[in-house]
Amino acid sequence: MSSPIEYAYNNRSNHLAELFEFLRIPSVSTQPGHKEDTARAATWLTESMKRIGLENVHTFATDRHPLVYADWLHAGPEAPTVLVYGHYDVQPPEPLELWDSPPFEPVIRDDYVYARGSSDDKGQVYIHIKAAEAYLKANGRLPVNLKFIIEGEEEIGSEGLHKFIPQHRDLLAADSALVSDTAMLGRGKPALVYGLRGNCHILVDITGPGRDLHSGTYGGGINNPLNAMSHLIARLKDERGHILIPGFYDRVRPLTVGERELLANFPLDEAAWLVETGAPEIWGEPEYSLVERISARPTLDVTGLIGGYTGEGTKTVLPSHAHAKISMRLVPDQDPKEIAELFQQFARSILPPSVKVTMRGGGSKPALIDRDTPPMRAAAAAYEATFHHPAVFMREGGSIPVVNQFESDLKLPTVLMGFGLPGDHIHSPNERFYVPNFFAGIETSIRYLELLRQTE
Amino acid sequence: MSSPIEYAYNNRSNHLAELFEFLRIPSVSTQPGHKEDTARAATWLTESMKRIGLENVHTFATDRHPLVYADWLHAGPEAPTVLVYGHYDVQPPEPLELWDSPPFEPVIRDDYVYARGSSDDKGQVYIHIKAAEAYLKANGRLPVNLKFIIEGEEEIGSEGLHKFIPQHRDLLAADSALVSDTAMLGRGKPALVYGLRGNCHILVDITGPGRDLHSGTYGGGINNPLNAMSHLIARLKDERGHILIPGFYDRVRPLTVGERELLANFPLDEAAWLVETGAPEIWGEPEYSLVERISARPTLDVTGLIGGYTGEGTKTVLPSHAHAKISMRLVPDQDPKEIAELFQQFARSILPPSVKVTMRGGGSKPALIDRDTPPMRAAAAAYEATFHHPAVFMREGGSIPVVNQFESDLKLPTVLMGFGLPGDHIHSPNERFYVPNFFAGIETSIRYLELLRQTE
Repeated sequence: MSSPIEYAYNNRSNHLAELFEFLRIPSVSTQPGHKEDTARAATWLTESMKRIGLENVHTFATDRHPLVYADWLHAGPEAPTVLVYGHYDVQPPEPLELWDSPPFEPVIRDDYVYARGSSDDKGQVYIHIKAAEAYLKANGRLPVNLKFIIEGEEEIGSEGLHKFIPQHRDLLAADSALVSDTAMLGRGKPALVYGLRGNCHILVDITGPGRDLHSGTYGGGINNPLNAMSHLIARLKDERGHILIPGFYDRVRPLTVGERELLANFPLDEAAWLVETGAPEIWGEPEYSLVERISARPTLDVTGLIGGYTGEGTKTVLPSHAHAKISMRLVPDQDPKEIAELFQQFARSILPPSVKVTMRGGGSKPALIDRDTPPMRAAAAAYEATFHHPAVFMREGGSIPVVNQFESDLKLPTVLMGFGLPGDHIHSPNERFYVPNFFAGIETSIRYLELLRQTE
Repeated sequence: MSSPIEYAYNNRSNHLAELFEFLRIPSVSTQPGHKEDTARAATWLTESMKRIGLENVHTFATDRHPLVYADWLHAGPEAPTVLVYGHYDVQPPEPLELWDSPPFEPVIRDDYVYARGSSDDKGQVYIHIKAAEAYLKANGRLPVNLKFIIEGEEEIGSEGLHKFIPQHRDLLAADSALVSDTAMLGRGKPALVYGLRGNCHILVDITGPGRDLHSGTYGGGINNPLNAMSHLIARLKDERGHILIPGFYDRVRPLTVGERELLANFPLDEAAWLVETGAPEIWGEPEYSLVERISARPTLDVTGLIGGYTGEGTKTVLPSHAHAKISMRLVPDQDPKEIAELFQQFARSILPPSVKVTMRGGGSKPALIDRDTPPMRAAAAAYEATFHHPAVFMREGGSIPVVNQFESDLKLPTVLMGFGLPGDHIHSPNERFYVPNFFAGIETSIRYLELLRQTE
């Protein structure tokens, strides 16, 4: 096994330079103005995969951004088949003024590469491409059959991939899936994520008068859409974090005693966590621990809100519009479609006829993964061999929409082997990726594929 | 009297061309980027006043935008002295995309001049300068002693003028004040405003985490400033328009039976009013009529709100900041300082320690004017002579901060002789001023000054 690891070690600066190229492409999937950039990131990936000897490199068009597929299937029928998943799209970089360096001009400071997408997920998905390269260049072959499916819509709900999977079961058939899109517990402390929250997002538009009106001349006679929006939002969640939408909690699977014990032993330093957030205090449902609240309980957050005059100073208008973006994190067995329906019913029951409302939304299902499978054991061993520290099991509060579908449609157990760190500022200004984890990730992936072949 | 009116009639196109020059200056007082433009509007006014023969033309510096003063005091000690007040600053033009023509490039369509400030208040204050010109050019003298005080901070609370008045009582001494900054009831239907609401505005900034956080990874463990802001706003006013700030209504002078009767007879076509607003329905305190609600009752409106990601699509952040602008309209005898204090106390009592809040604000006092004075009678007669329609008395929901102070500090009764129309879109996109009212306004002002001399 030394040869692929040596190859990876000797090619570190090339690998980093390639990652920089990838990070320079502003593949912001949610912004129509970046549609071509997002396509360019897909093309860049296909070229990089062809160059290292992967086969059947294809892009598949979707309604929005292309899927990238590649494979290498010569390990023999007795060897397991691994489906590596990742995404090349990134979150919007705004607010730009809070970045210390431009989001699409990667730079290294203090062993971190700073760029939008560095940790989520370009840096992480590229790890496995470089692990495959190490095998193919060093040994001319891989120890397992390997497939890649890399999408450009993870940050906007993975709709294209959701439709693609049931239509391409044979193409994607495998024994397990491998995903690096999560964080470790800290430097040198690997973590295997076995639970992911789902997501349901709703865009709410409330309209009152036909144009912004003078708040003196008309105020008191016309309902104000910003006040109406605030009344709606205040009734969605109480001030201690309980969601008030009727039926919202009906399908929430209660935490078992065993799982509460596992999470209670999770080594989260709450004081350090609070300092890292910059918030005045820890907050949320008092009946649950912080670890439970941020990973195993559903949530509702306003992620954006705008209406009226938002420039400098004051302007005495009674605004025509209010727009809010609401994100709900879901846990098993909540269903995003059902939650979106409950949300909209409740909102319509609250809003008075003095305003008009339109809502649209989407979402992804939550996932819980069996902790006791051969791929999980191989992953734990690969992590420990690289980091010299045992991996902990944890649930993650974020969402990776496709993981639930790998289980339901493809019957694949997924290994969530993350190389991010808690302070990576994903989705925030100054997103970064710890460069030693990029190299250690490639090493871990090389070891994992070999161990997986042995355990099967 | 025919000579000044003839002069005004013969010089209509010059007067309109000058107004266009005035309207081209983007004197947006609230926006620091327009500070020089606002100063330029003051300079333009002084030049225009010197040219027609007004005397002692001065600007007085304030902390923000200069005051413009001019007078003509040769009518003799037995003639009354009139202080004309107006403002040369304008509201922000945003949102720009909703204007059919650029806000600072005046154009005439269907007898209206479209431009920011055309009705509020450049077009209206300029009426009296042109009336003075008509007298000075036609007769070489005015029938009364005339003083002008024109400010550049009306849209931001008139702070400079508030400080200036008590320090310049002799300069501003007069027998009555004349203000054109309100609307008539409709085309050909003059209205004398005898009540103005005051205003108290508060800017509320709520901060949660130190940066925008990933709403999945952190959601459930940190309070969200946009949710906290919505809870605050929802508790300021109920869904039927009652303000819930303790003590808010304590100083509201109840409407008298006589005044409720007067307002009940006010010829407001509610159906037409609703169509003009574009709102789905009329709304507000059920115990009061629409006319009372929009002119004689206090209100609370969110005039602007922003936080989180407000671009296209979605971004799953738990935002760091929420910013709201709140405007409260006040009626006698509410005091803006006291209301600001009550607001801030209440907000601090509601907001939890899991967020930080900063608030700042300001305001202006409401005014009620005696309807039975010689200047009011002269104004009614001047209106009727010009429009051949009697003037109605009305209360106006908007605020003109200085009117209360003319009464309290200078002991001046004020005549609010407006030439705007209800559909002028003041503070909104496509602000406009009805050109026939500009000319009829000059005629009315000429008649008023002569009648005022006779009644004194």
